[in-house]
Amino acid sequence: MIIEFASSTDPKIQALKERFAEKTDVFIHGRRIALTGLTTADLTEAEQAAATDIILDHPKAVQSSRALHPEDIVVKTAHSQIDHQSLTLMAGPCSVESKEHVFLMAEAAKKAGATVLRGGAFKPRTSPYSFQGLGEEGLKYLREAADAFDLDVVTEVMDESHVDLVGQYTDIFQIGARNMQNFSLLKAVGQTQIPVMLKRGMSATIDDILNAAEYIAAGGNQQIILVERGIRTFDNKYTRNTLDVGAVPVLRSLSPYPVMVDPSHAAGYESLVGPEALAGVAAGAAGLIIEIHDHPDQAFSDGPQALLPKQLEELANQARAIHSIIRG
Amino acid sequence: MIIEFASSTDPKIQALKERFAEKTDVFIHGRRIALTGLTTADLTEAEQAAATDIILDHPKAVQSSRALHPEDIVVKTAHSQIDHQSLTLMAGPCSVESKEHVFLMAEAAKKAGATVLRGGAFKPRTSPYSFQGLGEEGLKYLREAADAFDLDVVTEVMDESHVDLVGQYTDIFQIGARNMQNFSLLKAVGQTQIPVMLKRGMSATIDDILNAAEYIAAGGNQQIILVERGIRTFDNKYTRNTLDVGAVPVLRSLSPYPVMVDPSHAAGYESLVGPEALAGVAAGAAGLIIEIHDHPDQAFSDGPQALLPKQLEELANQARAIHSIIRG
Amino acid sequence: MIIEFASSTDPKIQALKERFAEKTDVFIHGRRIALTGLTTADLTEAEQAAATDIILDHPKAVQSSRALHPEDIVVKTAHSQIDHQSLTLMAGPCSVESKEHVFLMAEAAKKAGATVLRGGAFKPRTSPYSFQGLGEEGLKYLREAADAFDLDVVTEVMDESHVDLVGQYTDIFQIGARNMQNFSLLKAVGQTQIPVMLKRGMSATIDDILNAAEYIAAGGNQQIILVERGIRTFDNKYTRNTLDVGAVPVLRSLSPYPVMVDPSHAAGYESLVGPEALAGVAAGAAGLIIEIHDHPDQAFSDGPQALLPKQLEELANQARAIHSIIRG
Amino acid sequence: MIIEFASSTDPKIQALKERFAEKTDVFIHGRRIALTGLTTADLTEAEQAAATDIILDHPKAVQSSRALHPEDIVVKTAHSQIDHQSLTLMAGPCSVESKEHVFLMAEAAKKAGATVLRGGAFKPRTSPYSFQGLGEEGLKYLREAADAFDLDVVTEVMDESHVDLVGQYTDIFQIGARNMQNFSLLKAVGQTQIPVMLKRGMSATIDDILNAAEYIAAGGNQQIILVERGIRTFDNKYTRNTLDVGAVPVLRSLSPYPVMVDPSHAAGYESLVGPEALAGVAAGAAGLIIEIHDHPDQAFSDGPQALLPKQLEELANQARAIHSIIRG
Repeated sequence: MIIEFASSTDPKIQALKERFAEKTDVFIHGRRIALTGLTTADLTEAEQAAATDIILDHPKAVQSSRALHPEDIVVKTAHSQIDHQSLTLMAGPCSVESKEHVFLMAEAAKKAGATVLRGGAFKPRTSPYSFQGLGEEGLKYLREAADAFDLDVVTEVMDESHVDLVGQYTDIFQIGARNMQNFSLLKAVGQTQIPVMLKRGMSATIDDILNAAEYIAAGGNQQIILVERGIRTFDNKYTRNTLDVGAVPVLRSLSPYPVMVDPSHAAGYESLVGPEALAGVAAGAAGLIIEIHDHPDQAFSDGPQALLPKQLEELANQARAIHSIIRG
Repeated sequence: MIIEFASSTDPKIQALKERFAEKTDVFIHGRRIALTGLTTADLTEAEQAAATDIILDHPKAVQSSRALHPEDIVVKTAHSQIDHQSLTLMAGPCSVESKEHVFLMAEAAKKAGATVLRGGAFKPRTSPYSFQGLGEEGLKYLREAADAFDLDVVTEVMDESHVDLVGQYTDIFQIGARNMQNFSLLKAVGQTQIPVMLKRGMSATIDDILNAAEYIAAGGNQQIILVERGIRTFDNKYTRNTLDVGAVPVLRSLSPYPVMVDPSHAAGYESLVGPEALAGVAAGAAGLIIEIHDHPDQAFSDGPQALLPKQLEELANQARAIHSIIRG
Repeated sequence: MIIEFASSTDPKIQALKERFAEKTDVFIHGRRIALTGLTTADLTEAEQAAATDIILDHPKAVQSSRALHPEDIVVKTAHSQIDHQSLTLMAGPCSVESKEHVFLMAEAAKKAGATVLRGGAFKPRTSPYSFQGLGEEGLKYLREAADAFDLDVVTEVMDESHVDLVGQYTDIFQIGARNMQNFSLLKAVGQTQIPVMLKRGMSATIDDILNAAEYIAAGGNQQIILVERGIRTFDNKYTRNTLDVGAVPVLRSLSPYPVMVDPSHAAGYESLVGPEALAGVAAGAAGLIIEIHDHPDQAFSDGPQALLPKQLEELANQARAIHSIIRG
Repeated sequence: MIIEFASSTDPKIQALKERFAEKTDVFIHGRRIALTGLTTADLTEAEQAAATDIILDHPKAVQSSRALHPEDIVVKTAHSQIDHQSLTLMAGPCSVESKEHVFLMAEAAKKAGATVLRGGAFKPRTSPYSFQGLGEEGLKYLREAADAFDLDVVTEVMDESHVDLVGQYTDIFQIGARNMQNFSLLKAVGQTQIPVMLKRGMSATIDDILNAAEYIAAGGNQQIILVERGIRTFDNKYTRNTLDVGAVPVLRSLSPYPVMVDPSHAAGYESLVGPEALAGVAAGAAGLIIEIHDHPDQAFSDGPQALLPKQLEELANQARAIHSIIRG
């Protein structure tokens, strides 16, 4: 049950919290208080009379719901403000390959209008014999390249034990699709104050990703960005995954977090990245995260889906034009 | 094997056709000839020398492939020209409900910029006890309404035995998703000269829909429009189907037919139709087919996904603005 | 609403039918009557008092539900009795290839214990250029071969306009997976008294196949066999489809029709047909339909999934042994 | 490339290893050596002549393939021998709830013929507010209960940082479906000598699970059990997941590891667990892992899918009878 009062200073809010804190999970946001599992029968008549709204049927992932948190959450970093009023561009190589190369990519990202540099230092590869990333060395190069071009850093953290290390270098933690339900990891990043970009698992339902976000929020960190990056379906001959554009408006309506789109992993092939990126923006995405490479055929990982710097620039221009139309 | 010659008047094309007509399927398009199942060993040295290109690896659905038919096919009707240079809008009620009502809807469609009026007279309903459509009476009303507002008609034909009847009233046959592999029906519409709008089955792969189109083309009718209308995936709590926007650029690259998007059936809910429609246009669709109703809660079928006339108008304006950006 | 009375001769059943026949769909089965869309408020107090049970929440496909029809339906043909007390074997070639060949296959089927000979005369092929079947000639050979070995015939009917023709030769109509929602065809076979073997569509839900069965039942024909033949999922590298064995107990619990399994189309490869067939029997299937060929590499269609006659014999023995264990 | 020699003592095997150890990954199993990425051109004529077989096309997950490891791997624990010659039963509650309760469940498991006791102490729950398990206390109870009834323990480890702790109590690590691609965790259990039961992720392909197994094998631990536990498909109204029985023979043919089935999580409902369990055995599973509870409606987690002890006993008897038929 969520109870809404006329004001966030109504003393009944604190009174309810104290009365039920030992009995159930209690969450407060502004003039709303969630008492999970309770019903109106648990309230006094005075409390019921004072309530401006009582919501009995809310999702279990209550802190990640509009029911408790109606207004949008804006994710803020040094160089970016991620929300649905603007269009944020994150770009960079799939893997950090060398110091020189990541500087080159940072320059290209900046030129296209990106405010966040992406790059993998710890890589979740299907095979144990594939390149696993440069590790801490990669993080250093990434940080230096971002700083040189006034960009934020987003990079993947794959394990609870790496959260401290990665946290020293990044502005935004990325939780990859394969780790979306690695609950130990979610709890660990939830304990930090660093924004988290949570990618939807390839067979995760809408409710699954919102529950995963709730693991982060439950630790006190609501600087969360949700990312649609393609789901696994029966059809994967010509695309790597199926971009679920409908998930963008659905997630926006259910939760307060900004929703971005990753067309690179959804498409899997360079020629499809552009159309899928623009589709994501047209569906209402708050931003795009796109892989680039100057020589895709020599990329350490995921070359076939990388855009050339020049392609990114053209795409970014079209994306911004579409975003203007959508915002109206 | 497809053999390309410098000119469509090269006598070798006819010679090859005559030599192999009894041995295999032979298809000619302009300066290309497809000899299915043959290899270069079947050609004379002179033929090989004269060829400007020989394509050994082409899809079985060869007439529906860019390999035989590189340039776009434009579908033309009295009031519409369906191709990727323009954005065609088809709109109307899910079911034809009455003469009055379909006239009202035709007016609304026209006002929003539609050139084609949609409406179902024979309805493929999951349950035998649901409204099955007005039949021929519905076709008449639909035709009259379209004529009154200078619109074309598109309506579903569900059975081979109805092709003649429906063909008397419609400008474009619609083959529904559930009938995408009703091969008798595909052959029957392939025998006509009426354009065919072929909807992708809800679990049809890209190759499946191209092979279905080939059944129509094999009869001599290449006035075909392909429609992505959402596929069936594990995630259907908040959307009816998953719009596969990636299918738009994929189909465009593989086949010469215009590719449209049906956001109404993909989304299933009015609030998602707009974002999915715009996503389709941004991904490169040649047009949209959208269900409308003045009183969605009273619709005979599919009310929850119907837009109000006013919503259609606003959406159409945004869609056209996005199409302009995409075309560059 | 379904109302159960103590006896099928209770005059209230007929009275209810007459009272509501014009207002709604009314179905009677034994001592039960279904008045679709009505509620207890529509009943008199005497009727409510006389009822031994009132079921308010029943599926729309009411004649195909255990709610109206609690006991099993047994499908009977000249040589077979298809129900869950026995294990029916249907076997034969994918396509009828020649008179000689189908006789050879009939002999092999008989030897393995089959009572039904399968074989396709009209083939639903993905490509229009693939072998489409021998047509009526194939039907004749199939009938003669079955008669020579005291077997029933099951063969696919693909189109409403073929129902009469195919009905002259077959004991059981097969509706293929691609036609499961070809409603015109379902209505047409529902008008006959010939048993119908309805294959689940490759993306059909449990409710979808029951609604498809209802189209047949609505015409007066409840001699229906449901067939699980594999569904389309993300995983199709090593199997053609995913056999959904769970569908067997689910369909049995919801509907009165016998449920069979087609391991040939589910598996797609000969080496997997055996394990999937036995899995189907262990899950409670009433029978198996299996493709065989003496020279699979020369088969006109679907060779890779055909068993050799000798393999069928061994498999049938194991299947019967498992069925005995299951029946207890 | 895999090169097979006549004997495992052929000195060429060691010579090849030394020559290529710095250039590529080299794996030796008996009389076979895998030199990943190399071709016959890298071999001397003498080596080629001495080889009894050269396999150029093998999976990247080479240690988990029959190509390098043709014979079955048997997983051995104190009380169990897990292979396809026998049928291993693992049973127990979803969560360890109390010392008393887990002893009761251990007794029931033993009585039904189980040799392994399952039970969760660290639970991967969709919601952060659901019961997360008793932690180390739960591990202690589980160990004590297993010891009291001469059973092995299998329990889930969710995080790299828990591997040591859980390893002190368990005989078999369980890697849950949601963690199947938690590569840090896979590497960590690969460093131990404790057998690992790897559950297939709900959208993992056959190749995905074999690559996940390879992460474990790459650490030196090949005591691996693969478990099919249902995949996510479009159909989940009446079952929780879709049991992919075809995966059992497919995995057996591709890899040397024993393959088990988890019907509890596949089915999700008690009434379907039996049919799906028997289907798994009929398809060739090496064993079953089944959840039980004496009062399912009071279970801390997953009550609806728990069997009663008595149901387990009857099911185990049928399963063993079917296994005897399959083994022939």
